[in-house]
Amino acid sequence: MIDRDKKQAAGLEPMEMMGALTVRLIHDLTNQLTVLAGNAQVLEMVRNNPERLAKVVDRIRNSSAAAGELLDRFSQYRQQLVYRTKPHPLEQCLRELEALNPSPGQWRVSTIGDLGALIALEPRWVAFAVWQTVLQSGVGAGEVRVSRGGFPADWSAAGHVPARLKQRQLLRCELAWSSPGPWLDEHEAAKPMNLHLAVVYELTKIVDGWVHYQFLPGDQHRFNLFLPLFGSEN
Amino acid sequence: MIDRDKKQAAGLEPMEMMGALTVRLIHDLTNQLTVLAGNAQVLEMVRNNPERLAKVVDRIRNSSAAAGELLDRFSQYRQQLVYRTKPHPLEQCLRELEALNPSPGQWRVSTIGDLGALIALEPRWVAFAVWQTVLQSGVGAGEVRVSRGGFPADWSAAGHVPARLKQRQLLRCELAWSSPGPWLDEHEAAKPMNLHLAVVYELTKIVDGWVHYQFLPGDQHRFNLFLPLFGSEN
Repeated sequence: MIDRDKKQAAGLEPMEMMGALTVRLIHDLTNQLTVLAGNAQVLEMVRNNPERLAKVVDRIRNSSAAAGELLDRFSQYRQQLVYRTKPHPLEQCLRELEALNPSPGQWRVSTIGDLGALIALEPRWVAFAVWQTVLQSGVGAGEVRVSRGGFPADWSAAGHVPARLKQRQLLRCELAWSSPGPWLDEHEAAKPMNLHLAVVYELTKIVDGWVHYQFLPGDQHRFNLFLPLFGSEN
Repeated sequence: MIDRDKKQAAGLEPMEMMGALTVRLIHDLTNQLTVLAGNAQVLEMVRNNPERLAKVVDRIRNSSAAAGELLDRFSQYRQQLVYRTKPHPLEQCLRELEALNPSPGQWRVSTIGDLGALIALEPRWVAFAVWQTVLQSGVGAGEVRVSRGGFPADWSAAGHVPARLKQRQLLRCELAWSSPGPWLDEHEAAKPMNLHLAVVYELTKIVDGWVHYQFLPGDQHRFNLFLPLFGSEN
């Protein structure tokens, strides 16, 4: 027989496979929820009729169980998919970042120190995450500072950061801009309200990275994206 | 301001974005369904207590509405994403197909006629779809026949095929193998039971293609993948 694992990974990335399946997942779940919501609507109307109530309750249970099974199946499928990490030159991330820069002088990309290292994340993903955040900032001017090194030891947020990240070499992309009023707090960012930003969070999680956002005095915003470098795993 | 549409598409493909978000979708929906299933369990127990029944019904309605909103939001987000189609040489599909072939002599790839045309689908996707199907066939030997042309006019299945597809130039990948007993019927294939094969179906739908499976007398299986060629849109 054919080497199943090898062939399933070949050609298409796990994220593309899951993405292709999302339409189906949404479609099938919507069907189940329509049944569910419809039966929930009539629940109160039939409460004095034990026989009808039992039927409606059954339908609610069944569609909720079916939706749960569907989610389980997708979740299991996702867990089967093997991510292949490949080393990419860090400098390529910078080049892709600059190529995406829509109007130099408005958003400025600068490098601090040497970037001669490797990263397991595809450079286009790094560039995507940074510019997606730029877009969500809602401002036309700011700075993207790219550097590498350890996690900043004196950082106030360091308490929340997983210990394994503090021991690794990281790519740090810091977005800095100025605008009145907080842009989002971390609680907001964790919600699924803003799916554009949620993609950045999920991408970062997939590679075991870290996202941190601060709103500082003087209307200063700092968005930090920490991505582990290749070969610095514990 | 920055050109939003352009930048959102840049760097990452829609399918990758949706794939990255699927973990979040599954997580958030599972939370809502847990509340739902829990309340569905106690429904019957509280049916003689109008006050408690009302509360449980409310919770069921709320979590079903929340799950529905979540699905809507993901669905809308998906619809915003712009697919960029690019022409790829059809011959490249064949090369990628052959490169994936795990053991020539067991599964044989052959070309019928000239493949000098363009296709909007990425060649690695074509190769992925074909080999994913090979894997799902569960047999170690068979044939993949690659050709291009119109939809076979004399085909018994032609009645079900959308008219627009019959007017287009297509890439046809026919998988033929022999094994006792039907492998799957079309009804089965449309179910989300087999997610490996579902990826092939969804990929094909995304590019407006067509999948057809037949189990013929003499234990013969035919799986046909029709993919529109670039520039043959109506």
